[in-house]
Amino acid sequence: MSKINVAILGATGMIGQRFVQMLEDHPYFEIEGLYASERSNGKRLSEVLKVRDHVYLDETLDREIETMDISKISKNCRIAFSGIPSDLAGPTETELAQAGVGVFTNAGSHRMDADVPILIPEVNPAHLDSVKDQKTFANGGFIVTNANCSSTGIAAPLAAMNDAFGLKQVFISTYQALSGAGYPGVPSLDAVGNVVPFIKGEEEKMESELAKMLGTYDNGAFNFAGFKVMANCARVPVIDGHLESLVIDMEAQPTLEELERCLVEYRGEPQKYNLPSAPEQPIIVRHEDNRPQPVFDAMAGKPARAKGMAVTVGRLRQSNGYYKMFAMSHNTLRGGAGGSVLNAELAKAKGLI
Amino acid sequence: MSKINVAILGATGMIGQRFVQMLEDHPYFEIEGLYASERSNGKRLSEVLKVRDHVYLDETLDREIETMDISKISKNCRIAFSGIPSDLAGPTETELAQAGVGVFTNAGSHRMDADVPILIPEVNPAHLDSVKDQKTFANGGFIVTNANCSSTGIAAPLAAMNDAFGLKQVFISTYQALSGAGYPGVPSLDAVGNVVPFIKGEEEKMESELAKMLGTYDNGAFNFAGFKVMANCARVPVIDGHLESLVIDMEAQPTLEELERCLVEYRGEPQKYNLPSAPEQPIIVRHEDNRPQPVFDAMAGKPARAKGMAVTVGRLRQSNGYYKMFAMSHNTLRGGAGGSVLNAELAKAKGLI
Amino acid sequence: MSKINVAILGATGMIGQRFVQMLEDHPYFEIEGLYASERSNGKRLSEVLKVRDHVYLDETLDREIETMDISKISKNCRIAFSGIPSDLAGPTETELAQAGVGVFTNAGSHRMDADVPILIPEVNPAHLDSVKDQKTFANGGFIVTNANCSSTGIAAPLAAMNDAFGLKQVFISTYQALSGAGYPGVPSLDAVGNVVPFIKGEEEKMESELAKMLGTYDNGAFNFAGFKVMANCARVPVIDGHLESLVIDMEAQPTLEELERCLVEYRGEPQKYNLPSAPEQPIIVRHEDNRPQPVFDAMAGKPARAKGMAVTVGRLRQSNGYYKMFAMSHNTLRGGAGGSVLNAELAKAKGLI
Amino acid sequence: MSKINVAILGATGMIGQRFVQMLEDHPYFEIEGLYASERSNGKRLSEVLKVRDHVYLDETLDREIETMDISKISKNCRIAFSGIPSDLAGPTETELAQAGVGVFTNAGSHRMDADVPILIPEVNPAHLDSVKDQKTFANGGFIVTNANCSSTGIAAPLAAMNDAFGLKQVFISTYQALSGAGYPGVPSLDAVGNVVPFIKGEEEKMESELAKMLGTYDNGAFNFAGFKVMANCARVPVIDGHLESLVIDMEAQPTLEELERCLVEYRGEPQKYNLPSAPEQPIIVRHEDNRPQPVFDAMAGKPARAKGMAVTVGRLRQSNGYYKMFAMSHNTLRGGAGGSVLNAELAKAKGLI
Repeated sequence: MSKINVAILGATGMIGQRFVQMLEDHPYFEIEGLYASERSNGKRLSEVLKVRDHVYLDETLDREIETMDISKISKNCRIAFSGIPSDLAGPTETELAQAGVGVFTNAGSHRMDADVPILIPEVNPAHLDSVKDQKTFANGGFIVTNANCSSTGIAAPLAAMNDAFGLKQVFISTYQALSGAGYPGVPSLDAVGNVVPFIKGEEEKMESELAKMLGTYDNGAFNFAGFKVMANCARVPVIDGHLESLVIDMEAQPTLEELERCLVEYRGEPQKYNLPSAPEQPIIVRHEDNRPQPVFDAMAGKPARAKGMAVTVGRLRQSNGYYKMFAMSHNTLRGGAGGSVLNAELAKAKGLI
Repeated sequence: MSKINVAILGATGMIGQRFVQMLEDHPYFEIEGLYASERSNGKRLSEVLKVRDHVYLDETLDREIETMDISKISKNCRIAFSGIPSDLAGPTETELAQAGVGVFTNAGSHRMDADVPILIPEVNPAHLDSVKDQKTFANGGFIVTNANCSSTGIAAPLAAMNDAFGLKQVFISTYQALSGAGYPGVPSLDAVGNVVPFIKGEEEKMESELAKMLGTYDNGAFNFAGFKVMANCARVPVIDGHLESLVIDMEAQPTLEELERCLVEYRGEPQKYNLPSAPEQPIIVRHEDNRPQPVFDAMAGKPARAKGMAVTVGRLRQSNGYYKMFAMSHNTLRGGAGGSVLNAELAKAKGLI
Repeated sequence: MSKINVAILGATGMIGQRFVQMLEDHPYFEIEGLYASERSNGKRLSEVLKVRDHVYLDETLDREIETMDISKISKNCRIAFSGIPSDLAGPTETELAQAGVGVFTNAGSHRMDADVPILIPEVNPAHLDSVKDQKTFANGGFIVTNANCSSTGIAAPLAAMNDAFGLKQVFISTYQALSGAGYPGVPSLDAVGNVVPFIKGEEEKMESELAKMLGTYDNGAFNFAGFKVMANCARVPVIDGHLESLVIDMEAQPTLEELERCLVEYRGEPQKYNLPSAPEQPIIVRHEDNRPQPVFDAMAGKPARAKGMAVTVGRLRQSNGYYKMFAMSHNTLRGGAGGSVLNAELAKAKGLI
Repeated sequence: MSKINVAILGATGMIGQRFVQMLEDHPYFEIEGLYASERSNGKRLSEVLKVRDHVYLDETLDREIETMDISKISKNCRIAFSGIPSDLAGPTETELAQAGVGVFTNAGSHRMDADVPILIPEVNPAHLDSVKDQKTFANGGFIVTNANCSSTGIAAPLAAMNDAFGLKQVFISTYQALSGAGYPGVPSLDAVGNVVPFIKGEEEKMESELAKMLGTYDNGAFNFAGFKVMANCARVPVIDGHLESLVIDMEAQPTLEELERCLVEYRGEPQKYNLPSAPEQPIIVRHEDNRPQPVFDAMAGKPARAKGMAVTVGRLRQSNGYYKMFAMSHNTLRGGAGGSVLNAELAKAKGLI
C-alpha cells in the first residue's frame, strides 16, 4: 500500500516538531514537506530545534524547511497537519480545504465552527461525520480540529465517567506546561520559581470545547453536553505535560473500585481499528500516592508509537459526595500533534481520505 | 517598657529563621536565645542559612545556636516560638507549657487538641480564650497554634466571605512552595521542571483546620463551621508563597464589586490594636489579569514589619453561580512564623502575657 | 541641601526598576520622572513590575511612566540614569549630553568611546576626569558608563590583586543570571533545566572592558592594562546574581592568607567619601565550602542602602601555581543600576555635578 | 550465542536505573537480577522510578528488586554492574571479585588502586590489561571502573587533542547536573534558581583521574600523563548532562579547522569492534553559536543504543594562544552506567569474559 503524502505546517514550532516526531516513519503517511514562515526558509530542522527530546527525531532532522505555498501543498499532498498560530491558521486552513486538502489542525480558529468537529477519536468518533457537511468536502477538502491541550487531557476520563455515571459538575484547576505557550512563549523571568495564574482564553475554551466534544452531532448540528465546567488555569515551570486537579459531581455514586474500572476499561474506535498512534489503554490509573507527575507520566502510552498518547489518572478519592483525582497528559502530543495524527488515522480508517 | 524575653525553637529551620527575621528588633519581644537540635549546637546562624532572603537578617546572623534545654528556657523566657518538627513538637511543647512558658507554635501536633486554639487574629480572636481552659494556664503556661500554611493563606478571605455571604462549599487546589516542606525537604530531582500532586496529610488538614478556625469557641468547646471543603494539594517548584485556586459556593449572590469590597475592607483585632506585625490591609485585591504571583505577591503587606503578612487575591470571576479566584500568601511568614508572632502580639494586647 | 533632580530612562526594564529602587528616598537625588518607550506611557510602575524583589519599592510604585522627551528631561533634570537598550541608548544619550545633562548609563553604546570612562569608583576613580575632555562638558553635559555586568562583578577583586600581586592571566567562566538579558529576554523553554553557553558579545566585552577599566587615564587617553583575559560565558536559570569561576596567574605568589587579606582590606574613594550607596567592605570573603551562591550572596553589602553592592568571593584555592576562586555579584545592582548610582555619587563628591 | 548473565547492583538509584536502560534487550548481556539495599526488597522497579525519561524502559519496569546477596550473584552471574554508593562499593566489589565475578563499576572506591583501570574504551583500551594483574583474576574475578562523570565527559576530546597536538594545561569549569548527586541528593531549596559552586572531591578527582586515564599502563604500572588540570566545579539546576567550559594550552597551534577535524575523526577500539553501545562518532562538533546545551545534546549518539554515549563539543574559539570550547556529555549514561556497559563490551571483545 502506498503511503499518503502529507505536509506539516508550522514545522519549526513546538507542535510542528511534534508532528514531525509522530509522522517520521509512519505506516500510513509520508512527510512530503516541512513548511513554515519565510523566516525559516531554507534552514534545516536541526537548526531550529525547540522540542527538547528530539532524541526521537533522526532522519528528518536534516530536512529542509520551505515557505508555505498553498498551491504546491495542494498539488502534492492529500493531507496537511497544521501547527501554525491561530491568527494565521484561520484563513490558511480555509484556503487549503478549498484547494481540496484534508486539514488536521491543532489551531483553535475553526474549533467552534458549526460544521467542524473537535475530534478525539476515543470520545466522539461520530463527530467526524460533520466534515461531510463542510462545503469543501465535495472537492476532498475539509477541516478537523483537535481540542485545546488542557481539554484534551481530561476529555477521555470525563467521557468515560459521563457515559457510566452521568456528569453534573466538574471543577478543574490546571498546572500547565510551558510548551503550551509555544516559543518564545513565556519569558523565563516569569517562569523560573513562579506560577502565573492566567492563560488567555483557556478557561473559556475548556468550558465550551468540553461541552461540544462530549455532546452529540445529530441532523447536521452539534448538541452540547449539559454538565457544568468551572476552570482555573495556571502556568507552572514544567516543560511538557499538563497536570489537572479535578473535583467531580456525578449523578451516580460509584465506589472508587467501580470508578477505576470504568476508567481503565475505557476503549474506543482507535483501539477497535488498532490505529497506529492509538494507545492500547487510553486511560491509565496509578496507585502510588504521588502520581501522576509530569516527568514520569507525560510520555505514558504503549506501544512505542503511542508514547505520550495515554492519559494518566491518580489519587482517586471521594469526599463529601464528590470524586477527586489528578489527571495528566502530554500537551503537545495527545493534546497537540498526536491528537491530530490520531484524527487523521481515524479519517483514513473510515475512508474519508 | 521592658521587652519580653523569647526563645526560638528550631531556629535553624525554614520556619525558625523566619521567626528570627520577624523578631529581630521587635518592639515587644527580645530574642533570648536560638535553640535547635544538638547537630547545630555552637554554630552561628550565618553558617546554617536556609532562608534565601536573609537579607532581612543582620545582627542576629552572628548569634550562636544552643541545644534545646527546657529548664533554661523556662527560667529565662516568658514565651517560646516553636518551629520544630511535629514529631518532636508534641511532647516538647507540652513540657514547656507545664514549665510555665507561653508556647506559640507552627507545629501541627496540638492543633486539634480540645483546648488549644488554631489562632488567626483577624479571623477568630475569641478562640484565644480557650487557653484559659488549658490545665497549665494557672502557672502561666499554654499553647497557641497557627494553622497549616495552606489553610492560613485563605482563612481571612474565607472568613470575610463567610461573614458577609455565607459559605456553602469551597473547592481548593493548591500550588504550594518548596519551603513548606522544610530543609532538606523535597529532592531537587522531584522539583525542577515538575509538579508533585501530593503533600502528606495536607488535604485532610485543610478540611479540619478551616472548619475549626472558622467555627466558634463557646462554653469551653470548639464548634466547627459547617461549610464543605474539597482540597487537591500539589507542590510546585516555587521557593516561597502558596498560590491557591478557589471555586466558592455561597448562600448569597453578591456582585463582584460587592465581593471585592467585602475583601478589601476586612479588618480585625490586629488592625484595631495596631499590632506591630499586623498588615494595615489584611486582604489585597489585584486587578491585573495575571496576578497574584508568588514572586510579586508573596511579600505583600504594609508597613515594613508586616511584609509577607497580607493575603493577595486576584482574578475574581463568576461562573455558573460560583465565584472563582486565586489567592496567595507567604507560607513561612503569614502561614508560619509570622502567624505565631502575630498570635503572641494579640496575646500580649489581651493581657495574657 | 536641596536634592538634585534626576530622570530615569527605561524605567520599566530590569535595570530601570533597579534605578528606581536605588534612588527612592536617596540623600542626594530626587526622582523627577520615570521615562520609557511609548508602550508604557501613562501606566504606573506597579503595573509593569518585572523586578521580583520590588518589596524594596513602595512610594514609587504608584508613579506614572512618561514617554521620553529630551527637552523636558534636559529642562528639569541635572542627571539622567539610563537603563535603555543599547541600540537606542547611543544616540539618545548623546543628545542628552548635548542638552547639558549628566548621563550615567548602563548601556554599552559609549563604553569604548575615547573620552568616556567605564567607571567603577573603587577601581578607577581617576578615569572620571575623562569626562572633562568630552565636547559637551562645557555645557554641563557628559556621559559616564558602568561596565557590563559580568565585568563589574570581578573588577574590584581583580584590581585588588593586580595592585598587590600583578595580574598576568585570568581564566573566567560565568554562570550568568536571566535578568541580565532583560525582559522578555530568555524564553523559559531555553532556561528551565538548561544552560545556554553563549551570550552575544559578552566574552569580547569582558576582555576589552576589564583592560580599559584596570588601565590608566593619562594625558587625555586611556591606556589599557596588559594582562590577558580568557572568558567563557554561559546563562544559567538563576534570576539575579552572576557567579564567576576564576583561575588567576599572578606575578607574585602570595599565601592564601595574604590573598584574602588583600581582598577584604580593599577600599577606595567611595569608602573614603562615605558615599551613600558604597558598601563599607567592597569585597567579602566567605569561608564556607559552598559559597558564594546567588540566593545567599547576591544581595551582600552593608549598610542597607548598599545591599547588592558588595562582591562576594569564596573557595580561595591554590593549584599548580595558579589561584582559584568563585566570585559573585548582583548583576542589576552593582553590575547595573547601582553601579551608575555610585558613579553619580562620586561625580557629586568630586564636584562635577 | 547464549547471553552472559549480569547482575545490576544498586538498581534503584540514578545510575542503577540507567544500567537497566542500557542492558534491557542487550545483544551480549542478560539481566539476571536487580539488586539493591533491603529498603527496596520486593518492590518493583516501576515503584521506585527516579530516572525521568524511563520512557526508554519497558519490560523491566515490572521486575522485582532483591537484596544484594554475593553468593547468589556469584553463583548466577559472570558480571556485576555496580551503581552502589562509594562507601558501600569498596568492600562489596572486592568481595564480588574474590568470588569470581567481573565487576564493572561506576563507584569511585577502586579508581586509584594500583592495578585497577579507569577505562574509557576509546581513550585507553590498553589499560584493560591491568586487570590481569589483579590477584582475583586467576579465578575470573576483577574490577574495572569508569571515571567520575565530569572527567569522562571531556576525556575523549582531551585525548584526541593530546594525541594530535600535545596538551600542556587545561582550565575547566563545570556546570554539572543534579542527577550526578544521586537521589535524594541536592535539596530543591538549594537548586531551584541557584548554583552551588562546590561538589565534594570533584575537582581533585578530575585532576587525578584525567592524568591516570590519559597516561599509560606499562610493566604492571600506571604512568600518569603530565599536563596540568585546573578545575572549578559547580552544580546547576539541570537534570541530566554535564556542561564544561574549557580553555586549553597546547604544544602545537593548529587552526580551528585542524582542531575540529582532529575531534570529529577521533575513533577508537569500540568503533573498530563495532561494540553495541559505541557511538559511531564519539565526538560531535556543533557549529551553532549556542550549543551544546544539556536539553538538546545530552542524548547525542547514534545508533539508538548509543544515545547519550557521544560527547558534543561546540563554540571552538582561539584566544591569546589558547583554545576555548564547551563540551557536554550525559553524566549518567556516558559518564555513568553507559561507560561501564561499554567497558564490559570491550572486555568481552578482548576475551576477558
